[in-house]
Amino acid sequence: MVRAFAPASIGNLGPGFDVLGLAIQGFGDIVEAKRARGRGIEISKITGFAEHLSRDIQKNTAGIAAQKAIQMMGIEEGIELLLHKQIPPGSGLGSSAASAVAAAFAVNRLFGSPLDTHHLIHAATAAEASVSGDFFADNTATSMIGGATLTRSNDPLEVIPLGTIPRAVIVLVRPHLKVLTRRARAILPQKVPMKGFVSNMANSCAIVAAFFRQDLDLLARAIEDSVIEPVRAKLIPGFYEVKEAALKEGARGFSLSGAGPTVFSITDDAEKANAIGEAMVKAFSRKGVDSDQFITGIDSEGARLLP
Amino acid sequence: MVRAFAPASIGNLGPGFDVLGLAIQGFGDIVEAKRARGRGIEISKITGFAEHLSRDIQKNTAGIAAQKAIQMMGIEEGIELLLHKQIPPGSGLGSSAASAVAAAFAVNRLFGSPLDTHHLIHAATAAEASVSGDFFADNTATSMIGGATLTRSNDPLEVIPLGTIPRAVIVLVRPHLKVLTRRARAILPQKVPMKGFVSNMANSCAIVAAFFRQDLDLLARAIEDSVIEPVRAKLIPGFYEVKEAALKEGARGFSLSGAGPTVFSITDDAEKANAIGEAMVKAFSRKGVDSDQFITGIDSEGARLLP
Repeated sequence: MVRAFAPASIGNLGPGFDVLGLAIQGFGDIVEAKRARGRGIEISKITGFAEHLSRDIQKNTAGIAAQKAIQMMGIEEGIELLLHKQIPPGSGLGSSAASAVAAAFAVNRLFGSPLDTHHLIHAATAAEASVSGDFFADNTATSMIGGATLTRSNDPLEVIPLGTIPRAVIVLVRPHLKVLTRRARAILPQKVPMKGFVSNMANSCAIVAAFFRQDLDLLARAIEDSVIEPVRAKLIPGFYEVKEAALKEGARGFSLSGAGPTVFSITDDAEKANAIGEAMVKAFSRKGVDSDQFITGIDSEGARLLP
Repeated sequence: MVRAFAPASIGNLGPGFDVLGLAIQGFGDIVEAKRARGRGIEISKITGFAEHLSRDIQKNTAGIAAQKAIQMMGIEEGIELLLHKQIPPGSGLGSSAASAVAAAFAVNRLFGSPLDTHHLIHAATAAEASVSGDFFADNTATSMIGGATLTRSNDPLEVIPLGTIPRAVIVLVRPHLKVLTRRARAILPQKVPMKGFVSNMANSCAIVAAFFRQDLDLLARAIEDSVIEPVRAKLIPGFYEVKEAALKEGARGFSLSGAGPTVFSITDDAEKANAIGEAMVKAFSRKGVDSDQFITGIDSEGARLLP
């Protein structure tokens, strides 16, 4: 039996729609995989945020990713999967990606690791695609390799690791609303104004430079999305009030995590982080929205075995 | 008297419209500045590609940039400028930017360097703006500081130096056509398809990563512009035939330089560079267009004094 952990992640990091991702420490999905009698994959149990999640291996990204992985390996043995779902689905924290990554990683280890990281990302991303409708690797690649990642190309898949900034403090606040990636993609415009195109490109480039330079200030001020955020903010009551509250408490950057509804702030000051989180929770509360805060850093490891 | 050199540059590097620039070795404009009687700035002479260039200091970017610089310094003395114009205007090689940069740099040195690089870029970019119609620093910042640059923001101006890749070989081919930046900007669409937005953002990010990683292969394959190039290619007869000829000879990346009409290829093989250049010139020639080739590398110094 192997037990694998895959971290939560912020997809669409700031301006980097479908391109940049960031792995989150201390929070992720766990998949246990063991050999079973017969053939095929079975998800025997889901714990944690199991509500509304299907154990049908065609509908759960853990099942789909595991299937893709064993197809790539050419294996036909029976496998039993247990999924400990710690990331709430529809939270914008790469929940479906983490399940897919943990499953692909676990199954690969179970059979002696014949697949490399590139193939595992492929298997997990194909699983993501079958539930979200589009092939994009910003969450799966990030959850697999950790740190920040750049997906240069989806076809062929090319992911560039950008590393981590150890002193970055990330304040996540998850309102108790559900935004489905599929719906959050459907409301996006088909065209982007030239000015937003240039601005998001410049800020995405600056995020890449920030990781290589270990420049947290630059990372924070480049978390600026003038294209996607204004559209998706409409799905989240109080978005701009929460943003204002965070910046007023000293947050250096603020944006949506993935398709939302989770939002995040970046700071280098662990002391301030609590006040920022509380201000964000209060601002949601004034709009009648309950929320949780979670203060953490960047996960630099990605998918890994647990004891 | 001081004599300053500012290198030519590739603006809009590949996908990085208005955002990324690359300085070119061994090719640039020279400005001599000396104190003169009376007040105000005079351009006493223009040599080289002087045709159609005005000596009116309100119309020549060297004059405008020098004026901006002395305004910033609070100086009212008389100054005489001589401009040695080595970069053909309208070639897509940052000709107006290099004149502006060399002039601002020279005037600043003439009075003991009271201005820092940031202010000099500002002066030069304001001069660019008054002839091209828009404030964008991808050529001016690059010509000033050398290497590759990322302009994260125009207002306030923020430029991030990306350094150089010493073994990069750049094959420039300049067809004898003239494309005015103002016109090349006017034909651009006001909106960008979502797919092109994501693709150019991803490739621009990859160019930034390539400089930090010293990865010439990555730089070359990220020189891919699916947004601006297809529009501007229409202004250049034979563009796609020339591209095909370059790639067939082993060029690793190909695009327009700035607004064109100059095109460039990147390779790591100095031997191949000649064959690539010749194939490009021949392809233009088959379309009835004369052209010159110029093989060089990345300028890593930017503006500097000459003896």
